[in-house]
Amino acid sequence: MKIGVLGTGAVGQTIATKLVELGHDVMLGSRTASNEKAAGWAKTAGSKGRAGTFEQTGAASDVVFNCTLGAGALEALHMAKEANLAGKVVVDVSNPLDSSKGMPPTLLVSNTDSLGEQIQRAFPKSKVVKTLNTMWCGIMVNPRMLGDSHVNFVSGNDAGAKTTVKTLLKSFGWRDEELVDLGDITAARGQESWLQLWLRIYGATKNGAFNIKIVAGKPA
Amino acid sequence: MKIGVLGTGAVGQTIATKLVELGHDVMLGSRTASNEKAAGWAKTAGSKGRAGTFEQTGAASDVVFNCTLGAGALEALHMAKEANLAGKVVVDVSNPLDSSKGMPPTLLVSNTDSLGEQIQRAFPKSKVVKTLNTMWCGIMVNPRMLGDSHVNFVSGNDAGAKTTVKTLLKSFGWRDEELVDLGDITAARGQESWLQLWLRIYGATKNGAFNIKIVAGKPA
Repeated sequence: MKIGVLGTGAVGQTIATKLVELGHDVMLGSRTASNEKAAGWAKTAGSKGRAGTFEQTGAASDVVFNCTLGAGALEALHMAKEANLAGKVVVDVSNPLDSSKGMPPTLLVSNTDSLGEQIQRAFPKSKVVKTLNTMWCGIMVNPRMLGDSHVNFVSGNDAGAKTTVKTLLKSFGWRDEELVDLGDITAARGQESWLQLWLRIYGATKNGAFNIKIVAGKPA
Repeated sequence: MKIGVLGTGAVGQTIATKLVELGHDVMLGSRTASNEKAAGWAKTAGSKGRAGTFEQTGAASDVVFNCTLGAGALEALHMAKEANLAGKVVVDVSNPLDSSKGMPPTLLVSNTDSLGEQIQRAFPKSKVVKTLNTMWCGIMVNPRMLGDSHVNFVSGNDAGAKTTVKTLLKSFGWRDEELVDLGDITAARGQESWLQLWLRIYGATKNGAFNIKIVAGKPA
């Protein structure tokens, strides 16, 4: 599959590397053609990995992962061009974190809206699927690094797009029963608000290499 | 211990009943002296359980559980009287849910503030501890009903108050390692924001009898 990854930070590089390992043709996209992090990644990624601008990445890809910082996500996607993304699956991994007011970060959008919804509204012809944003990137692509089962949430308005994304996630090592479909893209409010608790747990435990398991009893 | 429980809904009655079973002197508080739910509970609770107004409950108790609806929590605590609550531990179990705009509920306060913090600011002489609000009340008082370990978060500014609350929680069946201390009361933002994801998981699974386990790997 031709897959684009927008964002050259730890999340973008980690996902791009995993996708190359799985045999996909991957372009790591950034704001400028001369981005050194993207070029550095492409050098080590082998023949399946290339670097490009956001626009080149949007044009070259059938599925696009948004791994940019939340504050810049909409701008990055606009640079990838709406026409390039039309009809395509956009996997939104970003979080609308605002670190400008001190630590831990707050959210730029929350409660009655979410970044996932903002992206879907801004790109109505794309099929936005929110997933993977609830954990550290090392776990995203290597879920079996944890010694117990745990969950990854999926939301989006298009059932077919969610099926495509779940298939990719299973190729990362996620088990079918670990993928919890929360419904339409408004569930991104829940997925993103989780960061508020994630950040507090991280602050208390000093270990970001964790995720959550849902422990259920008999329905009440 | 003399313990007051503010709020006669499912959460308040469940916690009050558990506290009576554990041998505490419990008053279930409500807005009016003639509240039928409180009187009905007191009839079944035995000699250790009584009903009273919010004010009587505040006066009679050494520790007060706030189990009111979040929208009315501050008013209920003011009716319990600041002087009655001064120097005491106030265990805040409430969630600032707003169901007036449709389902699932949104939050009345979130992101940069929380109900737990609002209560602490309004009652600066009380020692507010936020806990138990992240799960269905059946699990709060019977954590061993789930077949795996899972977590209950605790936050508050006063270390001694948190120790008092943790001791009570352990008497409910919580294991020491399941009580995750998130730090000061600002962590209530995380505990309350979790409801946004809780509600989506509940919507997807149709089962509220669940909680979360933290599955941790080696620190990254």
